Amino acid sequence: MENFAFYSPTQFVFGKDTESEAGKLVKRFGGSKVLLHFGGGSVVKSGLLDRVKKSLDAEGISYVELGGVMPNPRSGLVYEGIDLCKKEGVDFVLAVGGGSTIDSAKAIAAGVVYDGDFWDFYRGKRIEEALPVGTILTIAAAGSEGSPDSVITYEDGMYKRGASGDAIRPKFSILNPALTQTLPPYQTAAGITDIMAHLYERYLTNSKDVEVTDRMIEALLLTMVHEGPRVIENPNNYEARANIMWAGTMAHNNCCGVGRSQDWLSHTIEHELSALYDCAHGAGLAVTMPAVFKYELSHDVMRFAKVAVRVWGCQMDFDHPERTALEGINAFKNFLSSIGMPVTFGELGAKEEDIPKLVDVLCNGDGRTGSISGFITLNEEECAKIYKMMM
Amino acid sequence: MENFAFYSPTQFVFGKDTESEAGKLVKRFGGSKVLLHFGGGSVVKSGLLDRVKKSLDAEGISYVELGGVMPNPRSGLVYEGIDLCKKEGVDFVLAVGGGSTIDSAKAIAAGVVYDGDFWDFYRGKRIEEALPVGTILTIAAAGSEGSPDSVITYEDGMYKRGASGDAIRPKFSILNPALTQTLPPYQTAAGITDIMAHLYERYLTNSKDVEVTDRMIEALLLTMVHEGPRVIENPNNYEARANIMWAGTMAHNNCCGVGRSQDWLSHTIEHELSALYDCAHGAGLAVTMPAVFKYELSHDVMRFAKVAVRVWGCQMDFDHPERTALEGINAFKNFLSSIGMPVTFGELGAKEEDIPKLVDVLCNGDGRTGSISGFITLNEEECAKIYKMMM
Repeated sequence: MENFAFYSPTQFVFGKDTESEAGKLVKRFGGSKVLLHFGGGSVVKSGLLDRVKKSLDAEGISYVELGGVMPNPRSGLVYEGIDLCKKEGVDFVLAVGGGSTIDSAKAIAAGVVYDGDFWDFYRGKRIEEALPVGTILTIAAAGSEGSPDSVITYEDGMYKRGASGDAIRPKFSILNPALTQTLPPYQTAAGITDIMAHLYERYLTNSKDVEVTDRMIEALLLTMVHEGPRVIENPNNYEARANIMWAGTMAHNNCCGVGRSQDWLSHTIEHELSALYDCAHGAGLAVTMPAVFKYELSHDVMRFAKVAVRVWGCQMDFDHPERTALEGINAFKNFLSSIGMPVTFGELGAKEEDIPKLVDVLCNGDGRTGSISGFITLNEEECAKIYKMMM
Repeated sequence: MENFAFYSPTQFVFGKDTESEAGKLVKRFGGSKVLLHFGGGSVVKSGLLDRVKKSLDAEGISYVELGGVMPNPRSGLVYEGIDLCKKEGVDFVLAVGGGSTIDSAKAIAAGVVYDGDFWDFYRGKRIEEALPVGTILTIAAAGSEGSPDSVITYEDGMYKRGASGDAIRPKFSILNPALTQTLPPYQTAAGITDIMAHLYERYLTNSKDVEVTDRMIEALLLTMVHEGPRVIENPNNYEARANIMWAGTMAHNNCCGVGRSQDWLSHTIEHELSALYDCAHGAGLAVTMPAVFKYELSHDVMRFAKVAVRVWGCQMDFDHPERTALEGINAFKNFLSSIGMPVTFGELGAKEEDIPKLVDVLCNGDGRTGSISGFITLNEEECAKIYKMMM
């Protein structure tokens, strides 16, 4: 196991009706003037935003609003949010929504207290300072509610890039599984896929002898395999929603990823798909992962066999472990298809003729020099091959 | 799943040579005058204490020392520590040792800033304020390095009781698995047993449909089953030590115990054994758990069958699940015996004629009224039966 530091100071408040505690929590973490940041109309229509405002009012906390966050959140709204916060003297950013809203809120929080262009952070500068951020989560997916990460799409060129820093870890996150019950099945499934991707990307490691984190990742994958179909069958299953929600947070606060190298090639390769076609991130991952994993299989057959046996219940073929390994990848692909996810390029609206453009941005965009690295290293030709495997 | 709050803000610094960061971490968390608290001579003899002092010196942090913490730490030394801190103007308590040293440090930290008798906290008063505490862990066992809990034995009557509060959660914990390599096999095994007890006590729940935490607990138990024998076979196996150490922290920071009722009857029943006979807490648990579990089995056969199948690899007997359940308990007992733990009353130095006294203190001591509760409720007669089952 490699040396590591682990720090996850977010206060999680989990369960039914917990959004009513938002005001008290903002106050506890020093907020007096809040930016209420959200996406489309659903948090307005559902009455959630009103309940949050009521909770802020009860504590005498004032607020300004900025809605309109899109999936794959854009730089334009971040600039707008930074200006608004500066003008209004905002001292706390409260995200009400999913990963996109939270990521946008984190970008604003970092940008407000930074003299330069906030995009510097997405070019690799570490975030050292930010306004405090809180979240009220409405979809179990990105894990942004407990992570120090944010992913934003830069509109001039449609680059999708990530930034990181403990300063943007949420001070608190309110997780009410009931809020996720109104999600359409496709969004629910995309969230499940994103959570499983966070687990697989940590599982695919070149570190040896990391049994504790292997087992923890497997535990969370097994939870998704058990609860995913239950929630697709009955969207109002609170218990299944609750298990998925906590698994989503544990999958990405890194308690199961410490001390080991991680992969993240699937995320990197997918980012170009959702940036270009504006597909749901989870849907893009469902198409990307099986292809990437098949390409990676020969690099470490036993690792893929291990997850096949332990998570997918495959019988170990001791004479031909690569068959077990492949069976596990196919079982995962079938699972994704069974919960309603696309598994081919065409289903995403992606086109073969775009592959050279995708590969060029992927391997050469924004400071990269002809390759990307994770579990293995991939050059342009190999990336093109993987995109073709998705067809 | 029940509503819950989860907050684990401890900064963990994990890996080889990490004790050299102690000075920087104390400074980061605001310490300028430290109480260095430790147990017997081993941290002195090994040179660990000197390395820590050097690290404090390098940051210009002064310190006073208080050694002598015993296993099952006593109230007398806590009072002494509180007086010393007040006299010397200490503003940070740094524990160098295992769970006993950390628990003693937490008690001192709470007592220094409290007007009354620190024992009030161990009678049920919540700890709201304390000096900051840091830890340098030398045995994977109690999980105190990431918990808000402390257990102290009151010398007048030998009551062993716990106190709790976020204020005594360590600000940082330094976890260097190499520091545990010099532990005698018996202490190592007692630590493994304690960790597994923390997992079982969370597993034995009356909550339904808590798959995510069930799976996480099973993952950590499986890690112990895998790594325990490796470390007993070769005490210098750093990787096995590292897996056990992180599992021990994750077992008790409660990320795998949230939103569910927990048991803690084994701990409660054992506490009287280690208070009276001064045996290692883990050894007491090794004797206690199989008896308690057999007594609890009929309360929820399927739960015991589940852990038997998923952790101990038992075949499910669908016609007689109680056989599978019992097989799992016996497999656990055999495992404990195989790593060198006692599994009978006599091996602890316990005597049948003491049972009435044990039961009386257990069920009526310090505010209890004739019974104890967890997974099930036990009266005096039942507790006596369980102590007898250990013989």
